[in-house]
Amino acid sequence: MTHPQIDAQLVEDMILQLGAIGRHSDTGVWRTAFSPEWVAANETVAKWGRDAGLDVNYDTGGNLWCVSQGREAGPSIVTGSHIDSQCPGGRYDGALGIIAGMVAVSALYAQFGPPRRTLEVVSLCEEEGSRFPTAGFWGSRALVGRAGPEDCNVVHDADGVSIGAAMVEAGFDPKRIGETVRDDIAAFIELHIEQGPVLEDAGLPAAIVDAITHIRQTEVTLYGTSNHAGAFPMDIRNDPMAGFAEIASGVIGHAEALGRPAVTTIGHCVPEPGGRAIIPRAVTFTIDARHPDPDAAKTMYDAHQTLIQEVATRRGLTFETSVLLDHPACQSDPHLLTALDTAAAKMEVPVMHMASGAGHDAQQMAQICPVAMIFVRSFEGRSHTPEEFSELSDCVAGIKVLAAALYDLAY
Amino acid sequence: MTHPQIDAQLVEDMILQLGAIGRHSDTGVWRTAFSPEWVAANETVAKWGRDAGLDVNYDTGGNLWCVSQGREAGPSIVTGSHIDSQCPGGRYDGALGIIAGMVAVSALYAQFGPPRRTLEVVSLCEEEGSRFPTAGFWGSRALVGRAGPEDCNVVHDADGVSIGAAMVEAGFDPKRIGETVRDDIAAFIELHIEQGPVLEDAGLPAAIVDAITHIRQTEVTLYGTSNHAGAFPMDIRNDPMAGFAEIASGVIGHAEALGRPAVTTIGHCVPEPGGRAIIPRAVTFTIDARHPDPDAAKTMYDAHQTLIQEVATRRGLTFETSVLLDHPACQSDPHLLTALDTAAAKMEVPVMHMASGAGHDAQQMAQICPVAMIFVRSFEGRSHTPEEFSELSDCVAGIKVLAAALYDLAY
Repeated sequence: MTHPQIDAQLVEDMILQLGAIGRHSDTGVWRTAFSPEWVAANETVAKWGRDAGLDVNYDTGGNLWCVSQGREAGPSIVTGSHIDSQCPGGRYDGALGIIAGMVAVSALYAQFGPPRRTLEVVSLCEEEGSRFPTAGFWGSRALVGRAGPEDCNVVHDADGVSIGAAMVEAGFDPKRIGETVRDDIAAFIELHIEQGPVLEDAGLPAAIVDAITHIRQTEVTLYGTSNHAGAFPMDIRNDPMAGFAEIASGVIGHAEALGRPAVTTIGHCVPEPGGRAIIPRAVTFTIDARHPDPDAAKTMYDAHQTLIQEVATRRGLTFETSVLLDHPACQSDPHLLTALDTAAAKMEVPVMHMASGAGHDAQQMAQICPVAMIFVRSFEGRSHTPEEFSELSDCVAGIKVLAAALYDLAY
Repeated sequence: MTHPQIDAQLVEDMILQLGAIGRHSDTGVWRTAFSPEWVAANETVAKWGRDAGLDVNYDTGGNLWCVSQGREAGPSIVTGSHIDSQCPGGRYDGALGIIAGMVAVSALYAQFGPPRRTLEVVSLCEEEGSRFPTAGFWGSRALVGRAGPEDCNVVHDADGVSIGAAMVEAGFDPKRIGETVRDDIAAFIELHIEQGPVLEDAGLPAAIVDAITHIRQTEVTLYGTSNHAGAFPMDIRNDPMAGFAEIASGVIGHAEALGRPAVTTIGHCVPEPGGRAIIPRAVTFTIDARHPDPDAAKTMYDAHQTLIQEVATRRGLTFETSVLLDHPACQSDPHLLTALDTAAAKMEVPVMHMASGAGHDAQQMAQICPVAMIFVRSFEGRSHTPEEFSELSDCVAGIKVLAAALYDLAY
């Protein structure tokens, strides 16, 4: 019998146990990187690992590893996610991926003994950037060599504490962060809540993620001429708000017309000076536009730039754009997708394939190894809030797929 | 010879003299109601009045009057404007109307002796609302019975000083503000800078204002559902920013299509919570929409409401609207318009007729007497800034029209 058995009660206990650390309101958590709550949560995971007979160690980047040593030498099969939360976040975002890994790897070890290839569960550090806004994906970036000692002094939290100082406080040595890099990982599979409503709409407990979307956030400032709202005729205005409205309608309408999985969001908009009776001098706004297909993403970004240029020229405005964030799409590894599809079929978990519209640690990990993800259905698609919730049976369904795939890859 | 002579040098001296009181940067002024600078500016006007042989008195609302007593009894012919400024404002907005009145009435007295009907120049108090934001048109409202003792304790400046306390500080008794009301004014003519570019475009020094526009400012909040910018497909969003963009394009485009004198401005827009990667929960914005024709204004406001309703329904949004300001249009008196047209022709000042897109004290005064206005060309249409400027020859042209009209009405 090679079907791993998953203990639903254990999954629920772990969700509640981790959710109690840094608890915020009834069902939320507030657990920022290197804080006492973060240290306590990792120590809880470490205890789970030791209790399950796994080897436990921290790396120099702030990540915790629980290792089921393989009988053969060679690169590891890794699963996990992040333990830090939004401020406040819910019990599931990140945490569920660590719980899933611990439950799956412990169950495999208990039920089938030591694996052939080493299996590791990682609790990654500061994915959200909720304490250090410019340090999102800190732990996974350290693993792939994209966070160095020079970053430790220039990245600060809202209280002015550097991430290096926060690391020292939590018992890490920022000078050694370069040692975090790994070149011995054969695969990374991350289980995460969906954070959107697609699975709920489809009536499915879980999905296999075949790509993580390209995310580009662009800040645009349109400059016009500030004048009296009453005394300046429309035909000679250079009104950046009129330009903004056209551009916002255009870029949102473009994504609406493209349909899934294209998305475009304008979350931020500041007119200057902002008076009711003053034609603005400038309007600054952001465009967050995502598509998992590289060609479609490029076509979309080019269309935005063309529209901004056209509207600005026609309305006598000037503009500046700067790309604040640009994470190219990350395609899941075909062999891992096959392993996940096979695992879902074997465990009789109905799944669909979808792209992730959110960024994940797996995107970083893709720079050093093949990656893939499993999504678990989110209640009403909510996330980044204490109201975030996934049914226990959906969590278990996702963990079954993970466990069976890990068995396939490592046993 | 019944053509009043206007001394350009005197006009320039007065502009510079008043501009030195509360001077801000090279060419600006910062002169808020009841401040020491405001008191000093009024005292300067009072001295001009006494030097010209006029009777000088303050009323109980904070307005200063310089009176050229008529030979006959009966209601007065009044001119003037406001002496308070924006923070900072320029030398011309308001001040030029007082200077024009002083120059015109003094010149008429010097050249033609006492008038048949009493002529008065008024320096009005707190038109801008720049110190007391909810007390705009304070002096003219007191004159028409729309500012009472009950207002004196509830209106405060940014430092928490009540307008009543500020009045006491400047030597006025807030309990007596009800006595400011006048019922013996036969006409009010206000000279003011245009604050827009219409005269500059037309190549004319001055205009006769046949109406002050209807001004309505509405605050709108569109409510949708906040969600993850990546994980929520476009087709199931309730995005208030998408709704705002459509409404903003629609209302601005409507005014553009109507053409002069319709104007619509969106100066203020705040998405909540405002994050780059979050579909906003709500967007609050203002619509400032103006038209001097009552029917056209109503049609425009109705069209805005219909559009908001249609967009909100289609996008699954709810909304609230509240009218923050609603000043119906004020038509100039036909007899005063004839007097001004005749005066312009007599003084050989080329003028056009236009509507005022800005609000003015004359709008308040219209509640107790016939009103009309003269506009003087503004350099690049600038106002509410130290860069505000009108050529001396244009100021003199406007004052010539004013003086000739006052002669016609009062001599």
